[in-house]
Amino acid sequence: MNQIGVGLLGFGTVGSGVFHALRSQEDVIFRRTGTSLKVRTVLVQNHEKKRIPDVRSILTTDFSDVLKTDIQVVVEAMGGVEPALTYVKQAMEMGLHIVTANKELVAKHGVELERTARRKGVQFLCEASVGGGIPVLGTLLHFLKSNRIYRISGILNGTTNYILSRMSDEGDSFEQVLEEARRQGYAEADPTADIDGFDAAYKLSILGRIAFEADVPVSNIRREGIRDVTALELNLARRLGYTIKLLAVGEQYGENGPITLGVEPTLLSITHPLASVHGIYNAIHLEGDVVQDLTLVGQGAGDLPTSSAILEDLCNLFVLSPPKRSLSREPLLLPEEQRGGVRFVCLEPSQTSEDLNANELRQRLQSIGLPVEDTVVSPEGGAAFIIHRWHPSFPSVLVAELGWDISRMTIRPVHGAKRVY
Amino acid sequence: MNQIGVGLLGFGTVGSGVFHALRSQEDVIFRRTGTSLKVRTVLVQNHEKKRIPDVRSILTTDFSDVLKTDIQVVVEAMGGVEPALTYVKQAMEMGLHIVTANKELVAKHGVELERTARRKGVQFLCEASVGGGIPVLGTLLHFLKSNRIYRISGILNGTTNYILSRMSDEGDSFEQVLEEARRQGYAEADPTADIDGFDAAYKLSILGRIAFEADVPVSNIRREGIRDVTALELNLARRLGYTIKLLAVGEQYGENGPITLGVEPTLLSITHPLASVHGIYNAIHLEGDVVQDLTLVGQGAGDLPTSSAILEDLCNLFVLSPPKRSLSREPLLLPEEQRGGVRFVCLEPSQTSEDLNANELRQRLQSIGLPVEDTVVSPEGGAAFIIHRWHPSFPSVLVAELGWDISRMTIRPVHGAKRVY
Ligand SMILES: NC(=O)c1ccc[n+]([C@@H]2O[C@H](COP(=O)([O-])OP(=O)(O)OC[C@H]3O[C@@H](n4cnc5c(N)ncnc54)[C@H](OP(=O)(O)O)[C@@H]3O)[C@@H](O)[C@H]2O)c1
Ligand SMILES: NC(=O)c1ccc[n+]([C@@H]2O[C@H](COP(=O)([O-])OP(=O)(O)OC[C@H]3O[C@@H](n4cnc5c(N)ncnc54)[C@H](OP(=O)(O)O)[C@@H]3O)[C@@H](O)[C@H]2O)c1
Repeated sequence: MNQIGVGLLGFGTVGSGVFHALRSQEDVIFRRTGTSLKVRTVLVQNHEKKRIPDVRSILTTDFSDVLKTDIQVVVEAMGGVEPALTYVKQAMEMGLHIVTANKELVAKHGVELERTARRKGVQFLCEASVGGGIPVLGTLLHFLKSNRIYRISGILNGTTNYILSRMSDEGDSFEQVLEEARRQGYAEADPTADIDGFDAAYKLSILGRIAFEADVPVSNIRREGIRDVTALELNLARRLGYTIKLLAVGEQYGENGPITLGVEPTLLSITHPLASVHGIYNAIHLEGDVVQDLTLVGQGAGDLPTSSAILEDLCNLFVLSPPKRSLSREPLLLPEEQRGGVRFVCLEPSQTSEDLNANELRQRLQSIGLPVEDTVVSPEGGAAFIIHRWHPSFPSVLVAELGWDISRMTIRPVHGAKRVY
Repeated sequence: MNQIGVGLLGFGTVGSGVFHALRSQEDVIFRRTGTSLKVRTVLVQNHEKKRIPDVRSILTTDFSDVLKTDIQVVVEAMGGVEPALTYVKQAMEMGLHIVTANKELVAKHGVELERTARRKGVQFLCEASVGGGIPVLGTLLHFLKSNRIYRISGILNGTTNYILSRMSDEGDSFEQVLEEARRQGYAEADPTADIDGFDAAYKLSILGRIAFEADVPVSNIRREGIRDVTALELNLARRLGYTIKLLAVGEQYGENGPITLGVEPTLLSITHPLASVHGIYNAIHLEGDVVQDLTLVGQGAGDLPTSSAILEDLCNLFVLSPPKRSLSREPLLLPEEQRGGVRFVCLEPSQTSEDLNANELRQRLQSIGLPVEDTVVSPEGGAAFIIHRWHPSFPSVLVAELGWDISRMTIRPVHGAKRVY
């Protein structure tokens, strides 16, 4: 029998989930892998917190205790950059494998950690850091090796997806739904990382690194949160056949060509595979030159789904060899003024006259040379339209020609149709 | 450089797709795997058919020529049981690995072929045989090892999904849509394998073997095709909040417990992740005790998606070790009379009086002791209702108490809500 000792850093939602799942799945894992995974030590911060009896005897608050135990793998489920970074590096230097759920750590220091792992001949696996239980990193690494991936689009944050789903279904405002989500435990006390798109940007950075074999720092990802998405927008978008999601999109224009990565509220046609992903679910739509398209949907957080990803990484440590991928390529970023595509423009009620109709609006916009197709006017005031072949000069045209106030207009990308590599 | 010689059996949709994709992806595959895959010989049936120039010099109609070439892998893309079975066995006996897209072969002889592969120390991979480009077998084998899978539900046949989607969207009859699908090339000249559910049953048998580690022959799979699904049913189901799909479902009741596998037209709540899978797409919904649920959606057929699965199998031949799974377990099948759950009953117009209303219908059904919840009546005649806690005696109750004609009634399963392992 192959016994593998595990050192567990953190015993919160994820850490305790892993601890319990390793027990409940012990027989299954042994039967299928011939391996027995044993948690030998657990690191926490606060020795005074009440814990379940089984874990008390192996608890420590001193990381050096973890390194003294007979372990082959460290599972990092603490979160944050420090001290996680220091601990993970020390463990790898001692020849230990790493499995982590920490998206911030992987997004900010993944390249450096991956390099250390290669130098030391250990594995650094992080499936749980993106999409909870969804095996998207594994799919990209092992089942799309022969594909050139040209676009990844994802709903990567459950909290914001839940909020937008509720706003859309119930017509409530952002603040109302956020308050309710907090009460029901779907949103953190400090929801900034979710609401403002940081969490999704971390995950997109990790996905982009694997899919495009390119190192795009989080600071190079366009990022806009959902704070100012309005019920009016959601309503008018729906009447035009779209839903609005906080979408993370990475695209590459040609092999080794420029890349663009962004997280922002985005219109999706209601027929798009991601449009029906509601509530706390996460989903990733992958487009590659041979497979065409592939969508993975699952629970993006929670103790069980996240533990599943960690257990699977543990089972695969000694089985799957990581494919050869470049770590250092610094990609060209597509200049903002070259981002064409389709946009949705929504006007606040103050900008529209009472007797405006959709036809008239379209004609007026077309008459000043804008490639406008669909227009919709709200009975309560406000209007929206879709502009094709977007150009960054369009907003100033709207202001100059129609006298609209730029601060009373929202402009959002519309997720494009399929594109051939 | 690691050169791997490939013998290709078949040069139809899939075979020629693989031939071209191995060229277009040559550089990507080499960069990521260090391997160069070369097709050294191609077996076809008809030497007179016109073929592209590049393949002519390596074409043969004699299988023994294939075995004489310097190859390490045989890709089987001919279809049918014989001579594919004989060829694949011979190749394995000579120490060659096998990659196949042939669901009929794998469903009917997979266990025996897998045994030969183990005995000879070669790999037998068949990702392309289920769900085209969707890496569902790989996901089950490599990313759900630590999970007990308790249910698999899939839309596994694009032709029938296309037909049902069109019937539902347009209100057309089965025959009308089938005729159109044939004209547009979405249905084969002889569509029996698709329409009557054989194709989906082959795929379900392969999925069930991996997920439940149990050998369920295709003949033990309940199977009903879509020939008698009516526009009335689709309409009434939709008014009750459901869509009808040709669903392949495998369930296991408790670890090592009884299993049930079936392919039949099934109602899905419109909020189910599979309900929005339209047209030629395939999708598989996996439920496991740790991951909770995972849905994979993609193109289930076509030269490119299918080639993607074959190329990925080829790339993984020397990298992924197959996990240990029992091949011989013959599972208990759940007796039909123990299949409870929820059913949809649809009555033809001849069975309902003109002034019947939904409320009255529900009361009448409840008064004879049936656990009926939702009822709907069509203005054009005909009615439908949902029965909970189904019992096989219910149809005879309906006949005896209400005088309905059993041949003018359709009874379909309603796909259940989530169940905890
Ligand atoms: N929650 C999810 O659903 C989910 C899903 C995917 C990924 N993740 C990621 O998984 C990681 C953990 O998340 P979580 O939700 O489990 O967090 P959590 O519930 O807050 O738990 C954090 C754990 O780490 C320990 N810890 C924190 N700082 C420490 C330090 N400096 N030294 C020692 N121990 C320390 C805490 O100790 P005490 O118990 O003593 O406070 C606690 O046990 C994060 O990176 C998160 O982004 C979470
Ligand atoms: N088509 C899809 O989208 C798809 C998707 C997934 C899986 N599959 C599976 O892939 C397999 C191939 O499908 P396909 O659509 O590519 O079929 P196809 O277009 O009919 O091609 C079959 C090929 O096999 C050759 N062949 C047939 N019988 C032969 C024999 N006895 N000896 C030598 N060569 C023989 C044919 O030779 P000639 O060229 O001389 O006629 C032809 O080149 C089937 O098992 C199918 O179920 C297909």
